[in-house]
Amino acid sequence: MRVYDIIDKKKKGEALGEDEIAYFIARVADGGATDSQIAAFCMAALLNGMTDEECFFMTDAMVRSGECAPRPAGAGVYADKHSTGGVSDSTTLILVPVLAALGVKCAKYSGRGLAHTGGTLDKMESFAGVRVDLTPEEFEAQVEKIGAAISGQTASVVPADKRMYAVRDVTATVDSIPLIASSVMSKKLASFADVILLDVKYGDGAFMKTPEDAEKLARLMVSVGRRAGRRTLAAITCMDAPLGDNIGCNAEVNEALAILRGEKRNDLADLSFFHCTKLACAALGIAEEEARRRVEACVRSGAALEKFGQIIAAQGGNAEDVYKSLPLAKNSFVIKAASDGYLHLSALALGKACAALGGGRTKEGDSVDHTVGILLGKREGAYVKKGDVLAELRYARAPEEGIALAQNAFRIGDKIEKHPLIYAFVGEKGDNVCSD
Amino acid sequence: MRVYDIIDKKKKGEALGEDEIAYFIARVADGGATDSQIAAFCMAALLNGMTDEECFFMTDAMVRSGECAPRPAGAGVYADKHSTGGVSDSTTLILVPVLAALGVKCAKYSGRGLAHTGGTLDKMESFAGVRVDLTPEEFEAQVEKIGAAISGQTASVVPADKRMYAVRDVTATVDSIPLIASSVMSKKLASFADVILLDVKYGDGAFMKTPEDAEKLARLMVSVGRRAGRRTLAAITCMDAPLGDNIGCNAEVNEALAILRGEKRNDLADLSFFHCTKLACAALGIAEEEARRRVEACVRSGAALEKFGQIIAAQGGNAEDVYKSLPLAKNSFVIKAASDGYLHLSALALGKACAALGGGRTKEGDSVDHTVGILLGKREGAYVKKGDVLAELRYARAPEEGIALAQNAFRIGDKIEKHPLIYAFVGEKGDNVCSD
Repeated sequence: MRVYDIIDKKKKGEALGEDEIAYFIARVADGGATDSQIAAFCMAALLNGMTDEECFFMTDAMVRSGECAPRPAGAGVYADKHSTGGVSDSTTLILVPVLAALGVKCAKYSGRGLAHTGGTLDKMESFAGVRVDLTPEEFEAQVEKIGAAISGQTASVVPADKRMYAVRDVTATVDSIPLIASSVMSKKLASFADVILLDVKYGDGAFMKTPEDAEKLARLMVSVGRRAGRRTLAAITCMDAPLGDNIGCNAEVNEALAILRGEKRNDLADLSFFHCTKLACAALGIAEEEARRRVEACVRSGAALEKFGQIIAAQGGNAEDVYKSLPLAKNSFVIKAASDGYLHLSALALGKACAALGGGRTKEGDSVDHTVGILLGKREGAYVKKGDVLAELRYARAPEEGIALAQNAFRIGDKIEKHPLIYAFVGEKGDNVCSD
Repeated sequence: MRVYDIIDKKKKGEALGEDEIAYFIARVADGGATDSQIAAFCMAALLNGMTDEECFFMTDAMVRSGECAPRPAGAGVYADKHSTGGVSDSTTLILVPVLAALGVKCAKYSGRGLAHTGGTLDKMESFAGVRVDLTPEEFEAQVEKIGAAISGQTASVVPADKRMYAVRDVTATVDSIPLIASSVMSKKLASFADVILLDVKYGDGAFMKTPEDAEKLARLMVSVGRRAGRRTLAAITCMDAPLGDNIGCNAEVNEALAILRGEKRNDLADLSFFHCTKLACAALGIAEEEARRRVEACVRSGAALEKFGQIIAAQGGNAEDVYKSLPLAKNSFVIKAASDGYLHLSALALGKACAALGGGRTKEGDSVDHTVGILLGKREGAYVKKGDVLAELRYARAPEEGIALAQNAFRIGDKIEKHPLIYAFVGEKGDNVCSD
């Protein structure tokens, strides 16, 4: 078998067999394939497509390219959630403590932010002392002990995906539904979650621009997960506007804490509780109404916040920090409405503005200023009057580029037909749209 | 402008502008584009196609990526010929001395054989002492003095094509008509020929398997050449069976010498004289019948052979060698017909057999044994009787693999509907099929 012939076959639009895909991915992992061969393969797969079966074979081969943590023998159901990425999306920081407080074990592997704003790991590091480089043993022991851990995957997990993604990133081959699906699912399947909930975003601030494409990606990932023997659910959700009101590491953590304290209710809270409900329902085998009741109750009682404190403490931080607010940068710039009308927001532009202010990365390895943030005063679709505060920017370094980008993120215009927050849900007993 | 966005645009099937293609090719030449980006671009171009205009822009940008020899001020018309490659194709060794003897200057840049059998440069080196690494100054001076030179292009010519071809070679992106056209034409346009004849092969032993694809490639190259201000002609010719009767460096040189001595007449002779006629006709501005008459006459008089001796001597060899035969390897294996019937030949299999016997390269940098050869006893389509000698293999090293490959190249079967040697000709005054 030769890498060349596998590329040639995909170029001709033929479906590859399991052995061919396994061979190719093994050569990606061991260096037997060149970067140019990986790029040619990805472009051919992007343009000619891959069958669902090929996508499963590729995911499976990628999982086997590295080490996998075996599912611990302990009792309980392990849940995991993955979002395809958006702006002001701190659902993980809310979902993990809520589920752990309800007795659903959360073995959550997360990433750093690659696009615009900090990722979950960056936000965890907003808490002084917190480590996100747990060894597989530390990770497993923590999940066993307190029911949850949030950490980065080690370099030995899915090395083929790491190499392939680095090539895709510079060759315009990221936006292939089967390649995205196998990349995401290989990392999910390399961990030991029993139930996986995929939050597939669509809209201006997401990879997938339309709900139809997001649904295609969601259904493909669900089919891959189920074929691998995992209970897999997916929500297709809107990312036209930022999900929460805050953008930037500390600012987003503060918002998540406010929601866990029951002090704030917005789209971010609604979506987080929706995910918690769906996962609790599946993991605990209870009715959706009962799951929803327990989710609300554990927030009201403070049990979820207390659990978050335990997680922070277990990973090296101070449990009391969850009862405080994290600091924001001192300098402030306020954006006001220039006229009366309905507010249009661009999630993508706000993400880029945050990155330009120093609160995100423009390339891998950039450091992130956790105190930089954008605090929205108004939500997408709100009717605003001239002079209303639309947002406050908090910054440290020269803010001109970030301010200009942020100003471009706001537009006053006609009334907006808002897309539903949850467009569709792929559940175990069939599909529904925001059923409760 | 970013390489990424150019790949992305081609991926989306959009036509690139002149500035975008120029930018991309400049980054290929200066290292600003990675191998993976070149591969992704080539796969996208292969699958989504390129317009004739894009192909011209790419060719032009590739020419400008390196140094070009300017057309010398001296009188006369400079002719060049390029074949897309086949088996037992020594037309260059016949065409260059014939044209030079007729007063058409031949500035012939050639290549080494990459596939199967030696290329023109290897065959030139069959003559003791001959150099094929002439400097641009030596090359130009020789063409001025004796009317012809056959040499390799220097490394500084079309560096973008060299890098791009190396990537295409391992990523299954060679077989794109616009990419082939720009690769071939960039090398032709970097030299100073006024009239260029392209011999585009189709069939079993060629890159292009069908005459239709070969004609597409031919017409595209002609359009690129003419847009660049060069008089460009193309013949679409058959390469199902080997063109001549001999395969291997010395064996092919011996056959070319026999044709130049007027001792042999076969498809190789016919095609060589066809090309000579078309080029003489265009370069000297004479009627085709007159051109044909002069070609035949200069072979009959020995003027062409004498000119070949001058070329060999000018490049470091002995002029008298053209009156001798070059040696072949001592060991011999004879393949005989196993039954009565019509002979079917595979040019590709014979080329591979020659390489396996040591007479060609299986990878770049391999050395070539000039004395290895395959001498065909019968031509494609001939009616043979059991026991007839089909071919004699001459070899030095362990011949088992080569013999097995050669035996597979012969099949006795039904009568063959032979394809015409010349399928079509794209001339300056319109197209015709083998007009005389």
